[in-house]
Amino acid sequence: MGNTFGKLFKISTFGESHGKALGVVIDGCPAGLEIDEEFIKAEMQRRKPGQSKITTQRKEEDEFQILSGVFEGKSTGTPIGIVIANEDQKSKDYGHIADKFRPSHADYTYFEKYGIRDHRGGGRSSARETAARVAAGAIAKLLLKHYGISIQAYVSQTGDLKLEKQYTELDLSLTETNIIRCPDPEMAEKMITFIDEVRKNRDTVGGMVTCVAKNVPAGLGEPVFDRLHAELGKAMLSINAVKGFEYGSGFEGIKMKGSEHNDAFYKDGDRIRTKTNHSGGIQGGISNGEDIYFNVAFKPVATIMQDQESLNEDGETVTISGKGRHDPCVVPRAVPIVEAMTALVLADYLLISRSNKL
Amino acid sequence: MGNTFGKLFKISTFGESHGKALGVVIDGCPAGLEIDEEFIKAEMQRRKPGQSKITTQRKEEDEFQILSGVFEGKSTGTPIGIVIANEDQKSKDYGHIADKFRPSHADYTYFEKYGIRDHRGGGRSSARETAARVAAGAIAKLLLKHYGISIQAYVSQTGDLKLEKQYTELDLSLTETNIIRCPDPEMAEKMITFIDEVRKNRDTVGGMVTCVAKNVPAGLGEPVFDRLHAELGKAMLSINAVKGFEYGSGFEGIKMKGSEHNDAFYKDGDRIRTKTNHSGGIQGGISNGEDIYFNVAFKPVATIMQDQESLNEDGETVTISGKGRHDPCVVPRAVPIVEAMTALVLADYLLISRSNKL
Amino acid sequence: MGNTFGKLFKISTFGESHGKALGVVIDGCPAGLEIDEEFIKAEMQRRKPGQSKITTQRKEEDEFQILSGVFEGKSTGTPIGIVIANEDQKSKDYGHIADKFRPSHADYTYFEKYGIRDHRGGGRSSARETAARVAAGAIAKLLLKHYGISIQAYVSQTGDLKLEKQYTELDLSLTETNIIRCPDPEMAEKMITFIDEVRKNRDTVGGMVTCVAKNVPAGLGEPVFDRLHAELGKAMLSINAVKGFEYGSGFEGIKMKGSEHNDAFYKDGDRIRTKTNHSGGIQGGISNGEDIYFNVAFKPVATIMQDQESLNEDGETVTISGKGRHDPCVVPRAVPIVEAMTALVLADYLLISRSNKL
Amino acid sequence: MGNTFGKLFKISTFGESHGKALGVVIDGCPAGLEIDEEFIKAEMQRRKPGQSKITTQRKEEDEFQILSGVFEGKSTGTPIGIVIANEDQKSKDYGHIADKFRPSHADYTYFEKYGIRDHRGGGRSSARETAARVAAGAIAKLLLKHYGISIQAYVSQTGDLKLEKQYTELDLSLTETNIIRCPDPEMAEKMITFIDEVRKNRDTVGGMVTCVAKNVPAGLGEPVFDRLHAELGKAMLSINAVKGFEYGSGFEGIKMKGSEHNDAFYKDGDRIRTKTNHSGGIQGGISNGEDIYFNVAFKPVATIMQDQESLNEDGETVTISGKGRHDPCVVPRAVPIVEAMTALVLADYLLISRSNKL
Repeated sequence: MGNTFGKLFKISTFGESHGKALGVVIDGCPAGLEIDEEFIKAEMQRRKPGQSKITTQRKEEDEFQILSGVFEGKSTGTPIGIVIANEDQKSKDYGHIADKFRPSHADYTYFEKYGIRDHRGGGRSSARETAARVAAGAIAKLLLKHYGISIQAYVSQTGDLKLEKQYTELDLSLTETNIIRCPDPEMAEKMITFIDEVRKNRDTVGGMVTCVAKNVPAGLGEPVFDRLHAELGKAMLSINAVKGFEYGSGFEGIKMKGSEHNDAFYKDGDRIRTKTNHSGGIQGGISNGEDIYFNVAFKPVATIMQDQESLNEDGETVTISGKGRHDPCVVPRAVPIVEAMTALVLADYLLISRSNKL
Repeated sequence: MGNTFGKLFKISTFGESHGKALGVVIDGCPAGLEIDEEFIKAEMQRRKPGQSKITTQRKEEDEFQILSGVFEGKSTGTPIGIVIANEDQKSKDYGHIADKFRPSHADYTYFEKYGIRDHRGGGRSSARETAARVAAGAIAKLLLKHYGISIQAYVSQTGDLKLEKQYTELDLSLTETNIIRCPDPEMAEKMITFIDEVRKNRDTVGGMVTCVAKNVPAGLGEPVFDRLHAELGKAMLSINAVKGFEYGSGFEGIKMKGSEHNDAFYKDGDRIRTKTNHSGGIQGGISNGEDIYFNVAFKPVATIMQDQESLNEDGETVTISGKGRHDPCVVPRAVPIVEAMTALVLADYLLISRSNKL
Repeated sequence: MGNTFGKLFKISTFGESHGKALGVVIDGCPAGLEIDEEFIKAEMQRRKPGQSKITTQRKEEDEFQILSGVFEGKSTGTPIGIVIANEDQKSKDYGHIADKFRPSHADYTYFEKYGIRDHRGGGRSSARETAARVAAGAIAKLLLKHYGISIQAYVSQTGDLKLEKQYTELDLSLTETNIIRCPDPEMAEKMITFIDEVRKNRDTVGGMVTCVAKNVPAGLGEPVFDRLHAELGKAMLSINAVKGFEYGSGFEGIKMKGSEHNDAFYKDGDRIRTKTNHSGGIQGGISNGEDIYFNVAFKPVATIMQDQESLNEDGETVTISGKGRHDPCVVPRAVPIVEAMTALVLADYLLISRSNKL
Repeated sequence: MGNTFGKLFKISTFGESHGKALGVVIDGCPAGLEIDEEFIKAEMQRRKPGQSKITTQRKEEDEFQILSGVFEGKSTGTPIGIVIANEDQKSKDYGHIADKFRPSHADYTYFEKYGIRDHRGGGRSSARETAARVAAGAIAKLLLKHYGISIQAYVSQTGDLKLEKQYTELDLSLTETNIIRCPDPEMAEKMITFIDEVRKNRDTVGGMVTCVAKNVPAGLGEPVFDRLHAELGKAMLSINAVKGFEYGSGFEGIKMKGSEHNDAFYKDGDRIRTKTNHSGGIQGGISNGEDIYFNVAFKPVATIMQDQESLNEDGETVTISGKGRHDPCVVPRAVPIVEAMTALVLADYLLISRSNKL
């Protein structure tokens, strides 16, 4: 259970970090969409390990193969099956933790839930699983692009280093110009230095990703349980290491008065718009045509290069020694994942909204 | 679309604030559960308007009727249909805003989405809809109680007044002893005074609700998309006026190092436990047996007793004058709603988890 | 579980035969549809008991109340909640069978499944449950009518009396002119006489309903599992007492050669059509624009006015004596139910098909 | 849409006949199940083409690869991804029909629905898609076997040759002893001769498969829409070329009186059983512990080795000439497919039934 996401643009993923392959089935991509494989590849590159000194040094090319659902370069309306082989299956790396519960990993909970676990590198709970999401998200992005919708995420915080500027004050086109994916070059420098230090201390640190969706038409979102921001929140919270989600005014909204927070409507040519956007582009769970923006909080990566005390499956005290090649901070590689999940939600709601009126 | 929540313990709600009635169908409540109507009534009382000077003065008794699924006091396994009549249908109160878009309400988005809207008091987007959730949530709570699981929420912030103590330092049994539902009596006093002032200024303010679930067995939660906290997050974000969700370390986790954040395992008698609980009782999306706790951020209520400029359906500039009887702050009445949605998620995952092993 | 039907035009029903009320929530009816209550009432009349000497003599008016989702006569896009009160709750009629398992009823299986059962008149397994389907189906019919699609069902067999003519050779407008709902007046007479005799013998008999949907656009149906005919089949088999379903050539198709069975394409003006229609309007699970037609087999009603040997909940041998007022043959009242379920399937697939292309 | 089946034991399939590969993701297989690959292979062999002179002569080995969800021979509770490569991609065979609509195939309806189609051998509408079902069904069978449930299907009719004996009068262990898969050796001979003749006449013919599930516990099936037989019906009708489904007394039940049809309860040791089984093991949509049995009607294969007149995408009259290697009758190879779909339904309902009681 739990490996399917979406209602009309629906994905089902599978695969463990050290099994033969990961994959995803996309069911419900409308027919006739041009499937640009180069674009999918580029998106995969943004997520893949080994990109820079502040990400894991693991080398994986994340090559994918489209097995079905595309004919002569276009989607046919049938399920698009994608497989991503696991090249780097060094499961021997994990022999030393085979029966141990790594702190703040999913080892213990998987074992309790299923009575069995694939202990090779986290198995299904590994962040490697997100490769399949990025592949599917790339196709969702192509669909959204067809309708003029764009999504851009960036790193807005690591540790105490927080970008105080709003997205509206930043040049988001600079995001991909540095290895931390922060559109403020000065802050980017600081963040990179900071993470590198953390890494040298054999430790890890948390971070935040901010995401903006522009040109989303008014009317997406299904009240009352499937509000647009509720589904976006679920999508984000389903990403490994995410601990929090807020949209529009978010937690800051708690401190505001209604008279400050309310977004006044005005006429902008033919279009109805709001002067401020504390609503984050969503009112009553439905998009209002303004920019949708939200923040996603990531905890520090649980694998640290230090000895930690823990228990094994027999309940005995053991020492876990950090090994392998892991990310000191998850956010640079989380940016394309946040975008992918956002695209999947918007693509789904775009199709659902076609059934709202006669 | 969007009015159904849950997979095995599934609810479908209906009803507008000023229509004939609200209601809910609960499909999947296991047979043999004692349905304590007095308990449901008590839960409804906690949510109903007119409780105190800091909530709306609207009087509604929220009397419910169980139409099916219960026989001789016990659930039969068939759907439980519940209807809650709308006594106070003063839709004339809303004549003055019939064709106007109230700022930061759902008027405009519903109109854009459906091309038509029930303008009487918010219609489906009214917080009145949550009465049906509380009724259903009460039954979910009865199911959880049967298995020893308890849920307690409380107000932890309004405006700048923030309870700095963690839930572990508070006596949660004091929550219901004051009208703001804050378990710290001193802070409660301050919050009440503050909200009353806001009300007198014809304004509104945001707030935060913290929720704790105790005695949840390890193993609930379905990776990878339906992680327990992802579904809890969606549930919370589906409540009117919610802008953010965080669990465990939440947004504070961003600033932490892995070496501080990791929760070390230890043996407590026969039980495997963690020394700290930054994980918020959930690891890899699956409960680990520790307390589950999270925060929910609410924005200020959009209806303020002040004149606001806005637009009508023809795009003309109009003035909206605050009328009616509204909450100056949503959080006191949100406490039982947060608990209800939490109960619905846990009841659902409890049933789903029965299919995890042979 | 199991009380929800449909994906985008989705219904959830509730209610036992002798509880307070039945009801249905329709989630996903597009906004702006004129909800003609007189039409719904007329459909309910076609299903209600006590219509004629060959149906049960039970008197129930089946008055429904729309509680939500309709504003000023039109659907608003929010869930339409409908309640149908149970007037005739003579549960005392059932005291004599309270702990007995009636042969070929659901008494034993409900008891085994849930460990508890509402023994008053079948509870949830009663055919009374179909009243809610007919109410929802009437709204689906209104949606289909808006798009020019019509559905007509009729009785084509009872016992050995089988209408050999195909629907194409009959004047379906005669269906409602007789109490058996058979469009061949001569055969109708025979069937009525036959059923009346069966009734006098304190027995019951099976029957068949044939259904035709005209003007269904090409393109409805979702391969591979949700083929249009698969969902129609499920819908029909979900009706009480149904034992079989066949569409197009059906079981007769077994005997045919490919060279006879294949439907040759030809051009009819601008339209692509088929010369024959053994496909029953569906090819590869997708409608092709030709008439959709199918047969539904109903077993004899299980309640007979004769003594039968059986067991009680303690496993003791008991005698069940037929009492109450039951149908000698279910098909006349099944006609509107078959139509309702057909309408629900087509309405759902019509909305789903909007997501097939860019 | 439409490529997912099941709720808790859920499969999603993908793949076209002449694409790179077919596959299936099984989400919800309980952890700890021994995954016997030899058994899966054997099931695949029963379905594969080229088995005998009365099936297509196409050679495909249908080799599958399990990519995930199995660790050290056991299911882990995570999704089981399976891929089956298409070896025999002679899409050149289909150049001659690229823009033509083959009669009674899905060419025209796919084109209408999606505006585009993969014309190589039927693409997604090809019966090759069922290979993925058989692989998934084999795993469902392993789960059922663990609980002592068995499923056996056989050919009961081809053309006019109908096995008049009930399954209870046959030795089902003989089914696999002949190439037609009919447990009556004499009838099997006749059927083989008949189909071979049909083949020589360059024609095809329909057939029937009967299926029996033994040792199904009482209590499976979810009223009211998801009755066990309704879901079985849908499962069968989702198989290529199926035109009808009946269970228990089926269409013959139409002719019966209630007094004959009712299955009397009696005590068999500690067990409550029925003397007859017209109910087909299902009452009120819920299994009662007796054998479940049903019939599935298959139409003649649409591809015949004869010239047929048809239309192309431009609406011009064209001649379709039968080519390639096709089955003269689908039923011998349909036997394992019917079993697979039955296993998938029962596995799903077995898991769902765990949530019925406290």
